[in-house]
Amino acid sequence: MSDRFLAAAVQMNSRLDKEANVATAVRLVEEAHRQGAQLVVLPEMFNMLGPFPDVIAAAEPIPGPTSKLMAELARRLEITLLAGSICEAATAATNDAESAQGNVIPPRGSNTSLLFLPDGSLAARYRKVHLFNVDLPGRVEIEESRYITAGDKIVSYETSLARLGLSICYDLRFPELYRRLADEDAELILTPAAFTRTTGQAHWELLLRARAVENQAYLIGANQCGSHGGNLESYGHSMIIDPWGEVLASASDEEAVITAEIDLSRLREIRAQLPALRHRRNI
Amino acid sequence: MSDRFLAAAVQMNSRLDKEANVATAVRLVEEAHRQGAQLVVLPEMFNMLGPFPDVIAAAEPIPGPTSKLMAELARRLEITLLAGSICEAATAATNDAESAQGNVIPPRGSNTSLLFLPDGSLAARYRKVHLFNVDLPGRVEIEESRYITAGDKIVSYETSLARLGLSICYDLRFPELYRRLADEDAELILTPAAFTRTTGQAHWELLLRARAVENQAYLIGANQCGSHGGNLESYGHSMIIDPWGEVLASASDEEAVITAEIDLSRLREIRAQLPALRHRRNI
Repeated sequence: MSDRFLAAAVQMNSRLDKEANVATAVRLVEEAHRQGAQLVVLPEMFNMLGPFPDVIAAAEPIPGPTSKLMAELARRLEITLLAGSICEAATAATNDAESAQGNVIPPRGSNTSLLFLPDGSLAARYRKVHLFNVDLPGRVEIEESRYITAGDKIVSYETSLARLGLSICYDLRFPELYRRLADEDAELILTPAAFTRTTGQAHWELLLRARAVENQAYLIGANQCGSHGGNLESYGHSMIIDPWGEVLASASDEEAVITAEIDLSRLREIRAQLPALRHRRNI
Repeated sequence: MSDRFLAAAVQMNSRLDKEANVATAVRLVEEAHRQGAQLVVLPEMFNMLGPFPDVIAAAEPIPGPTSKLMAELARRLEITLLAGSICEAATAATNDAESAQGNVIPPRGSNTSLLFLPDGSLAARYRKVHLFNVDLPGRVEIEESRYITAGDKIVSYETSLARLGLSICYDLRFPELYRRLADEDAELILTPAAFTRTTGQAHWELLLRARAVENQAYLIGANQCGSHGGNLESYGHSMIIDPWGEVLASASDEEAVITAEIDLSRLREIRAQLPALRHRRNI
């Protein structure tokens, strides 16, 4: 295992046209690969982003069209690929269980990220644990939990590059999830997102950097950007951050590929000099 | 209980002359009171800061000279006063217990903050839970745990102004402590500190703001500044931060009193609009 490799975050402006979104994702992942990236991270809901009813209606099983295409892309380019997230179709079992509780519920899915290895195999999947319900009058109103079933598993995975921890967007507000990833020795935490413009201006960089610093891990935030129709706007500013909290690479608010070198020897040096992870108390 | 009140952080350059430090503290608390502050926060080890052996040798019991003086100051000015921290003398019991384990140990104390109410009563004391052991070659080398016995209690206290949560300096790197304070409904978290220049430049504002945002609480960081002799230098930049992460007041790197209005109606508004504290999962 080499200590150093190039990682990339892909920033997209996804909308309701899934075919166009997927074509853009493929083009940008290929661009990241041309730049030498061995690990590429796509944003949340990269294959389709818009009003939840539309997204849910186009949810896919896994394996399904998008996941198969991403597996093939990882295999063809021989890269590790975090297929940001897609809307994963609920199994019949899930919907039945909820209906059986007497709830009148709209169709549902999961907000699921997929980790593909260079041989095209699906190594891990993470279903977003914290769902974004917010009501900032006139600015942001979203009720994700009406449409998405929350995940209930912490997911990390040891690749040949580094031990990866998985999280999605709103998870960033919950340090306890990242502590669980630190417990699992995550060295590089991936955070696909569709962080909104309003909350992103206030908190995106802050929370990414805090999670990196307190867990002494690299962080990659791959965000959506621009308008997705209606009031839905994402902040962009995808970032790659080192374990000391330094921003190694940052995008503007337009479609972009950013890259930075991940250096695990630097991570080990920081953890040795300021061994905060060993100073945790269980009180 | 009014929703609004003025709070102050006192920034000091404490050294080994305890009498001079305490006189400075009294002068600056009086200055904060003149500006209308109802709550004043002093920095970590405000009454004496320097090499641990010197500080430990001058440790005080509680009640003791410094704590009695601070109690009297709070009563005279009718303010709520967090007497940052002082080095609390270890009880004979503590030292005996450690000696009985066969360890050859230097004299020890606790890094203890004291919360006084406007009637001069001691409402709460917090002993620093996370001790700062760091080895940044040529920049910062500190081994607090050689001299200080760590606390093992989370401390919050409901005053007539707000529900206060207590923490000290290096605790800032441990989000789980602040989650425990959030569990206890802390609205305003006080963090006296002697955050070093090197780590402060990199992380002080970041960590204060992150703890405020993720716990949707006000944060007051009252820091030491300047040189304390030897290699020991503090970063200054004391700050008062609102629950959205905005810096309401900030000091430079010299002795200072900063003030800002704490507005609990703003806190409640933020918690209603983005109810992240209710979205925590226990997985």
